[in-house]
Amino acid sequence: MTSSLTELLAVEPLDLSLRDELQRLIDTKTKPPGSLGRLETLARQLGMIQRTTRPSVGRPVMIVFAGDHGIAAEGVSPYPQAVTAQMVANFVAGGAAINAFSGVAGLTLEVVDAGVAAPLPPSPALVDAAIARGTRNFARERAMTRDETLAALAAGAARVRHHAALGTNVIGFGEMGIANTSSAACLMSRLCDVPIDECVGRGTGLDNAGLARKRNVLAAALAHHADAREPLDVLAAFGGFEIAMMAGAFLEAARSRMAILVDGFIATSALLVADSLAPNVRDYCVFAHASNEAGHRRMLDHFGARELLALDLRLGEGTGAALAMPLLRAAVAFLNEMASFESAGVDNRSA
Amino acid sequence: MTSSLTELLAVEPLDLSLRDELQRLIDTKTKPPGSLGRLETLARQLGMIQRTTRPSVGRPVMIVFAGDHGIAAEGVSPYPQAVTAQMVANFVAGGAAINAFSGVAGLTLEVVDAGVAAPLPPSPALVDAAIARGTRNFARERAMTRDETLAALAAGAARVRHHAALGTNVIGFGEMGIANTSSAACLMSRLCDVPIDECVGRGTGLDNAGLARKRNVLAAALAHHADAREPLDVLAAFGGFEIAMMAGAFLEAARSRMAILVDGFIATSALLVADSLAPNVRDYCVFAHASNEAGHRRMLDHFGARELLALDLRLGEGTGAALAMPLLRAAVAFLNEMASFESAGVDNRSA
Repeated sequence: MTSSLTELLAVEPLDLSLRDELQRLIDTKTKPPGSLGRLETLARQLGMIQRTTRPSVGRPVMIVFAGDHGIAAEGVSPYPQAVTAQMVANFVAGGAAINAFSGVAGLTLEVVDAGVAAPLPPSPALVDAAIARGTRNFARERAMTRDETLAALAAGAARVRHHAALGTNVIGFGEMGIANTSSAACLMSRLCDVPIDECVGRGTGLDNAGLARKRNVLAAALAHHADAREPLDVLAAFGGFEIAMMAGAFLEAARSRMAILVDGFIATSALLVADSLAPNVRDYCVFAHASNEAGHRRMLDHFGARELLALDLRLGEGTGAALAMPLLRAAVAFLNEMASFESAGVDNRSA
Repeated sequence: MTSSLTELLAVEPLDLSLRDELQRLIDTKTKPPGSLGRLETLARQLGMIQRTTRPSVGRPVMIVFAGDHGIAAEGVSPYPQAVTAQMVANFVAGGAAINAFSGVAGLTLEVVDAGVAAPLPPSPALVDAAIARGTRNFARERAMTRDETLAALAAGAARVRHHAALGTNVIGFGEMGIANTSSAACLMSRLCDVPIDECVGRGTGLDNAGLARKRNVLAAALAHHADAREPLDVLAAFGGFEIAMMAGAFLEAARSRMAILVDGFIATSALLVADSLAPNVRDYCVFAHASNEAGHRRMLDHFGARELLALDLRLGEGTGAALAMPLLRAAVAFLNEMASFESAGVDNRSA
């Protein structure tokens, strides 16, 4: 293990010392105890992450990592691989769903080329961190070398450090990569020890025949890489550059004590990797939504997580994470702004 | 029926003529078909309400109606009646949850005295529309006279007209009134023909003994007003001034073709009244959240509605409605701002 990786894995457990004081503060607010439900849980978590009874949302950021997947050659997606680069151009031009939702949520959006197959025109709105022009086809060989895997983890962490230096304390990660539900399904199957059939969904819209083909391809790939068991090996075997960068970004964000908005199926697969390397990471996570992609519910169960939103999304790009952002603002706002029974002169319960 | 009430009930059915064009537009956006899930439904609904393929969120407003309830004398709430006035003062001073959430959601907040028992100091931040200093105790007599009921409906409608003239096209309603879950439970039981035990919950936090007492009080009151069957009679018998004003506000908002954010148990009981008077109202409604108050789920089922948020809230004040507001902004943003496959040069599915 390299020293930079060792550093990256030094995620501290959540500091629970403020828990009771946060709860006491929440209970003094002018509302029946517990009546703000899951926003109260969220306010406590943000306070513990930031080690303060006055948590804030500071310069919130959404990073979208894009990468291509050799496995696309096996016909596991109804869209051609060229769509990855086309969608990156769409992000850069401001025309995608994540652009619209980042605007609504007040998120600074950053787009990172983690390893898109087609060359992308340079743009000030695009960070070039490409490891290679797409991964290898993991039906035949490991998707990434160990060096590529480590480089991707480090590159993801570096993007988070960039934003930490600018004052970001809330961050979300999104992704774009044709065929990346195939990567995510294999990561899930191996890391959670769940049969592949329970991890495979229709992705962006496979029909029944396509779904059956995808299942067969992935079952064979898992058998082919039966030796990949240790988290970094699993990531190298099945991962994508964008997924590995997200995993590194999760680690660095937790290390920097940011609150992390977890998006859908792909993002949660990257969290599975990060969490298997440094289990404290999950304490910094806010599970934004439940994707309609089969398998995501089971991933959430793996983390004992309950999502904030259930809107039947299955788009990726970080859209679910962006949509949950206003709920973090609401949690912080009630904790910081609401009067107490005492300060407002409101009678507490007679009971 | 007075002529002003007849006018108020003239809610047009939703104009479905744009439905297919809205769907076609949504399907050209750079995303797999259907992948924005319930936001796509929301975008279509907003387009049909506003009769445009470019719906907007214009000057969104939250009106909180406050009123007191004679039934509070029966010990159906753990909080003393004075809390209603104290909380109104808290709204006016900016210290309540709905203040914090309105700020986050960019909602203009208006507080209306619909009939609070204690005198309230005049304030430019408070609209005085009080019908009387609290309703009568409906364990003994009708809560409101027919004239009071009609006056409250008209006053609620007038507040909405005020905002319509200023350009508001999205509105939500909240409430404050100690003991108003008792009113709402009786309205629900009678209007939906559901046994009272399935309509009664702990409100702001009754213990088991308090819950049993509340059930007995309300069962007896329903028997006492067995003759109240027609919607206006039911409202007069069990309603509150704030609930009647909300019902009038629902009617006027639908008549003005606003999108209406429906909050929790009390707000939905007001919608039950409005909907039983003019069934088209529900088409203009966005069901913001599922309250933890027992009975709200069944009310949502009555409308065949699925909530946007499930955050275990049980506070009222319009808090659930305010928290859903960013999702309306997101629906409008994706419809108006996203590129099409054609305009962005993105390949559509190969299938």
